[in-house]
Amino acid sequence: MSRNRNPKATFFPVALLLSTILLPTTPRAGETGDIAQRYHEEAARLIGEAIVSNDAYESLEYLCDVIGHRLSGSPGLEQAVDWTADLMRRKGFSNVHEEEVMVPVWIRGEESARLTAPVERELNILGLGMSVGTPPGGIDAEVVVVESFDELDSLGAAGVRGKIVLYNQEYRGYGGTAAYRMDGPSRAAKYGAVAVLVRSVGPVSLNTPHTGTLIYDEEQPRIPAAAVTIEAATMMGRLARRGETMRAHLEMGARQLDDAPSANVIGEIPGSERPEEIVLLGGHLDSWDVGQGAQDDGVGCIIALEAAALIRRLDLAPRRTIRVVLFANEENGTRGGKAYHERHADELPRHVAAIESDLGNGAARGFRLDLRGREGEDEEELEELRDETLAAMRSIGELLELIGASGMRTGWSGVNISSIVADGVTGLGLDHDPEGYFDVHHSEADTFDKIDRGQLAKNVAAMAVMAYVLADMPGRLVQNRVAP
Amino acid sequence: MSRNRNPKATFFPVALLLSTILLPTTPRAGETGDIAQRYHEEAARLIGEAIVSNDAYESLEYLCDVIGHRLSGSPGLEQAVDWTADLMRRKGFSNVHEEEVMVPVWIRGEESARLTAPVERELNILGLGMSVGTPPGGIDAEVVVVESFDELDSLGAAGVRGKIVLYNQEYRGYGGTAAYRMDGPSRAAKYGAVAVLVRSVGPVSLNTPHTGTLIYDEEQPRIPAAAVTIEAATMMGRLARRGETMRAHLEMGARQLDDAPSANVIGEIPGSERPEEIVLLGGHLDSWDVGQGAQDDGVGCIIALEAAALIRRLDLAPRRTIRVVLFANEENGTRGGKAYHERHADELPRHVAAIESDLGNGAARGFRLDLRGREGEDEEELEELRDETLAAMRSIGELLELIGASGMRTGWSGVNISSIVADGVTGLGLDHDPEGYFDVHHSEADTFDKIDRGQLAKNVAAMAVMAYVLADMPGRLVQNRVAP
Repeated sequence: MSRNRNPKATFFPVALLLSTILLPTTPRAGETGDIAQRYHEEAARLIGEAIVSNDAYESLEYLCDVIGHRLSGSPGLEQAVDWTADLMRRKGFSNVHEEEVMVPVWIRGEESARLTAPVERELNILGLGMSVGTPPGGIDAEVVVVESFDELDSLGAAGVRGKIVLYNQEYRGYGGTAAYRMDGPSRAAKYGAVAVLVRSVGPVSLNTPHTGTLIYDEEQPRIPAAAVTIEAATMMGRLARRGETMRAHLEMGARQLDDAPSANVIGEIPGSERPEEIVLLGGHLDSWDVGQGAQDDGVGCIIALEAAALIRRLDLAPRRTIRVVLFANEENGTRGGKAYHERHADELPRHVAAIESDLGNGAARGFRLDLRGREGEDEEELEELRDETLAAMRSIGELLELIGASGMRTGWSGVNISSIVADGVTGLGLDHDPEGYFDVHHSEADTFDKIDRGQLAKNVAAMAVMAYVLADMPGRLVQNRVAP
Repeated sequence: MSRNRNPKATFFPVALLLSTILLPTTPRAGETGDIAQRYHEEAARLIGEAIVSNDAYESLEYLCDVIGHRLSGSPGLEQAVDWTADLMRRKGFSNVHEEEVMVPVWIRGEESARLTAPVERELNILGLGMSVGTPPGGIDAEVVVVESFDELDSLGAAGVRGKIVLYNQEYRGYGGTAAYRMDGPSRAAKYGAVAVLVRSVGPVSLNTPHTGTLIYDEEQPRIPAAAVTIEAATMMGRLARRGETMRAHLEMGARQLDDAPSANVIGEIPGSERPEEIVLLGGHLDSWDVGQGAQDDGVGCIIALEAAALIRRLDLAPRRTIRVVLFANEENGTRGGKAYHERHADELPRHVAAIESDLGNGAARGFRLDLRGREGEDEEELEELRDETLAAMRSIGELLELIGASGMRTGWSGVNISSIVADGVTGLGLDHDPEGYFDVHHSEADTFDKIDRGQLAKNVAAMAVMAYVLADMPGRLVQNRVAP
């Protein structure tokens, strides 16, 4: 097999040239011409060290096994905040500090459910995050099964009032199906349902319920809601098709306490020439209160932290500052992302990029570019800027080709940086192979044993190379688009 | 791509000829020469009907969803006994009856476990079948992790006495790894362990414990034992490697009651010419007390029952009798298989074959031939008889080639017929693709949703064709080897 070692070498200057000719008035991609050549040596050192070092794997093991899960308001999250800040200090980060974030405190409490008719079956449930509890003694009601919102709407109040609605929608990718978990409770409450069960959002199950947040509509009564397993949901679907009348008993001790202080954890590798310019790397430190939050998103935090630590350890001293931010409260409030935005609003024009990793530990395939249009912006010019920026990223990607991470495309960057990206910061999302992630996501099965050491090393390497190059290259990847 | 439609057509008569010349004194394969041609039409009707009919799928759905799991001594098993006997009657079986079997009554009771040091973690457990319970209030003890019996032996009493032993052996196929579940408790008790935890026997986990029987050594004290998930076992393995001292609290309310009556369910399609000769088809009706016993072994029972029902429905009237036996108590005692053996001992010379299906609902790949040597038998002659019989089975297999079930090999037939096979009855095991079976085996995840309708249809078809041909072909597959 023959291989063209550098198939994109001639492509990139043409793209630059075109952009210079065609887009003289828009911000444009930095002078990234010979990126692959220029950063060859540093990338080799970063990738080699990431692959040989066991640091990331060991850090994540500690976070998962010794600290464990980390719901907002829990001792686990506070322990993780202190431990990661300390880890940054031990790894030579500068300006390590915690920035207070007030977070919601949702307590699951005791919970149980069982089918009581036409047969008795215990149901393995996980209450949805932010759900209210049931009245003491629980709820006994008939269960009505729907497979879609359309079916719910066609039943209407006559078919739903006083009943427990089970959403038994087959998994069709996370985005679409999670709508039933998020909006399903209020949409059923609108028709008078007394509680909601949702088929767990995931492609496979070994009797595995998956939690996740719901979002109550302020105009509807708040009714309790829990996830059931695929096994239970499909069984109830079949019983309904047999024409059986089903009843269930649901008890949930869920409750909301007053907000409590937590923190975003921040540490930096200071820039050697333009320290005021920032490349932000981040993940979220909070998790659900089940499993170990290994892939969601312990691993994202460790990828960001260890990628920066790698640059520090090799004394690479990039021109700009690399800032690692471990956000609080992504799962049920996004308070960490919003707090960062508020507190650092005046710095946003100096954020040259924000890179998030929050889709597990699948092998990195590259990065998603999230250049989001704002009011008044010309969509056509923005599209051209995206193309131009992707071309620049692909040049960086040449350094990552042999670890499989050279793919650059447009897409969502991440929940935690979404608020600053909406304001004009250039967002990047580490683009993981999603295989396996939603099998364990938000469940007891999101644990360290599922972490592949080789994939973790490559994820750290991809993040380190991208962060380093963006922080060091002469021009910005994209000129500032944040309104001053 | 070209395909030789009938690659074995010239092979078979040669094998028959050779056997006639070389083995004049051993029992030999029946006159199966033109099997594929002779049974072409019947096989086509059986396969077509199996593929078009929904009967097997519907029967299994009822068994799983409405009846549910069926541990020996439970109301579920008794309900299944009555329902399957009734189903046989409704499907036109003759001589339908229940043959009493006294079965052990093991009750799981309440059970829970948690790691108490160095961190607090709830452990998702399933007590092992036939385990004793803990004393009231449970057991609190240090946990020692071993990965093998060798490691246990090297620790000895000094390392084990007064402790809970966790067997954290990586899955290496069911047979090898299940030894830790079966023999592990007594082997640890020998060194003074107070309880045993076993890493669940299976290749994957979504926080899924798998139960299964243990076998106490009469000479050792009986200590309680439970399965933990792969997640928990590997976490404790990692904590042990960190040098942490672990403690756990285990409570199990397991207890054994007096034996109770249950039954093997038997029904027949009577032979038209030699009704005294029998082709037995079977599976086991009992299951563990979790999930629905869909693949272990509801599906095996339904494959046997619906294969015979298909032959009956098409009025094919084979020469010999097809007898369906749904055995009681495979999981924790094999009492059903033993009871059948005792009660039908004088009929064994007239059992021309016994076919079991007890490895799930993976697509049938063919059949395993289990001709077991008995004391005094010449192993070389037996080996030749096996080859000859496989050749005859391969001729039948030609009819199953395009549903992928033509593969014939020697191997284990099944637990329930093992006792009659040991006495000389020719055993056959439906040879399923094992993929996925041990993922759910003995767990809450062994449920109807995992049943592939197309694979089930092919399994019924393969069983029906094999049963029909063996029951109808002029000669026996193998001459009688049961001592009179």
